[in-house]
Amino acid sequence: MKIKITLGYDGTDYCGWQVQPNGVTVQELLEKAVFMVTGESVRVTGSGRTDAGVHASGQVAHFSVEKTSIPPEKFAKALNAHLPSDIRVFSGEQVDQSFNACTSAKRKTYCYNLYLSEIENPLKQRYSTTVHGDVDLDLMKKGAELFVGEHDFACFNASGSGAKTTVRTIYSIDIEKDGKELRVKVTGNGFLYNMVRTLCGTLLALSQGEKSLQDIENMLINGDRTLCGRTLPAKGLCLESVEYD
Amino acid sequence: MKIKITLGYDGTDYCGWQVQPNGVTVQELLEKAVFMVTGESVRVTGSGRTDAGVHASGQVAHFSVEKTSIPPEKFAKALNAHLPSDIRVFSGEQVDQSFNACTSAKRKTYCYNLYLSEIENPLKQRYSTTVHGDVDLDLMKKGAELFVGEHDFACFNASGSGAKTTVRTIYSIDIEKDGKELRVKVTGNGFLYNMVRTLCGTLLALSQGEKSLQDIENMLINGDRTLCGRTLPAKGLCLESVEYD
Repeated sequence: MKIKITLGYDGTDYCGWQVQPNGVTVQELLEKAVFMVTGESVRVTGSGRTDAGVHASGQVAHFSVEKTSIPPEKFAKALNAHLPSDIRVFSGEQVDQSFNACTSAKRKTYCYNLYLSEIENPLKQRYSTTVHGDVDLDLMKKGAELFVGEHDFACFNASGSGAKTTVRTIYSIDIEKDGKELRVKVTGNGFLYNMVRTLCGTLLALSQGEKSLQDIENMLINGDRTLCGRTLPAKGLCLESVEYD
Repeated sequence: MKIKITLGYDGTDYCGWQVQPNGVTVQELLEKAVFMVTGESVRVTGSGRTDAGVHASGQVAHFSVEKTSIPPEKFAKALNAHLPSDIRVFSGEQVDQSFNACTSAKRKTYCYNLYLSEIENPLKQRYSTTVHGDVDLDLMKKGAELFVGEHDFACFNASGSGAKTTVRTIYSIDIEKDGKELRVKVTGNGFLYNMVRTLCGTLLALSQGEKSLQDIENMLINGDRTLCGRTLPAKGLCLESVEYD
C-alpha cells in the first residue's frame, strides 16, 4: 500500500530533509516514525530535498508499507505521536502505485520572507531574513517578470549539483509587501539547488542598485553565476505547496 | 539622564521580565547590557512584568544613567550589541525625570494568538496556542463586549497577586479571524496577573459551550474565579504596545 502524506516542519533545528551521517534530518525522523507505527523499515521519499534550516508548510512525501492495520487517513495522527512537535503530518491518503512524490510533482511553490528594518525583530527572525532599509517594489517586480517562463537557469546552478538539465519553467513570481514584511512567492515546475534563495537575492540586489535589469537578462542568456546576487539565508525560505495532476 | 526604550523579545527561552534568582530574565539581560555600555549598574524598569514565555513586540522600559557619552538615540544600537538576538531594543530617547515606564503607562495592548486546527502547525506553534476545531466568532465577540468598560475584575485575580485594587478599564477587545489564525487584541489601562490569558480562555470556553454569557455577567458581579475559563498558555500572548500621555 502506497501512502502520500502532506507535512510541515520548522527547519531551524534540522540538517535539512535528506538522511545524512552527521545531524538529524526530517526524512530520518519520518522513517523512524513509520517504523514505530508499522514495524516496517521503509524509505520516505519527499517531493524534493529542502536544505538545512529551510522550513515547509506543505511538503509532500510517499512511502510504501506491506501490510498495516492503520487506515491511510489515520496515518497523520499515528505518525505525529512519534514525531517531535516541530514536524507535523497534516494528512495522509492511499495513492496509486504509480504515484511518486518526487517525480510526479508538477508544480512547487516556495515563499521567501524578508523583514525590512534597520533592527531585527525577535518575533520575525526565525522565519525571515532582515534587510536594512526599504526596497524598490516596482523594480523587484520588473526583475521578477524576466525570470518567469521557461529558461535555462544555469546561472543559478551550484557547482556539483549534478542536475541533468538546468532548464526550468517558472510559472509566477508574486511579490507582496505588508508593512515591514515582504514575501516573494515563486511557483515553478522544479528548482535547482539554492535557486529560489539566489533568485530572491538577485531581486534584492536589483532593488539595492547592485544589479540591473540588463544583468538579469544577461545571466539568463550567458548562465553567468557572477551576475547573480547573493544566496539568501535558509531561514527565510519555506516550501509552501507541491501540486500533482 | 533618563532614557526610555522600546523593545521586543521572543519570550520562549526566558523566565519572564523580572529579575529572579533561578533562570534568565529579560530585565536582567537589559541591566547587564546597560552596564556594558555605560559602566553603571542601574535598574531597568518595565511598563509591567511579562510572565515566563510571554512575548513582546512593544514593551517599554526606562533607566537613569549618571553620565554617558552616548546620545539617547544611539542607545538602541549600543544595547543590542550586548543582547542576544531574541531581545532587540527598537528605539531609545531621553525623557523627562517625571517619566516612569510603569506608573506613567496609560494604555496597554496585548494580543493573544490562537491557531484553529486539529493538528498543530510547526511554523505557528511558537507564538500561538492551537485550538482543535473552529470557534463561534459572533459569540466570542458578544462575550468580549461584556468585559469592555470599567469593571471589578476580581474574578481574574490570581491568589497572592498583591494587587491593591482589582478595578480596571478595558477600552476594547478586537477579535480577528484570518483563515486558521484568531487574534484577540485587548487594550486596557492595566491588567491583573494572568488576566488577558484567563479572559481569552473564558471567551474560548464560551465559544465551546462550556461557559455562557450569563456566566460572564455573573463573574463580573460576583468576582467568582470558578466561573472563568482556563488560563491559556503563555506562548500565545504578546505585549504589543504601551501608550503614555
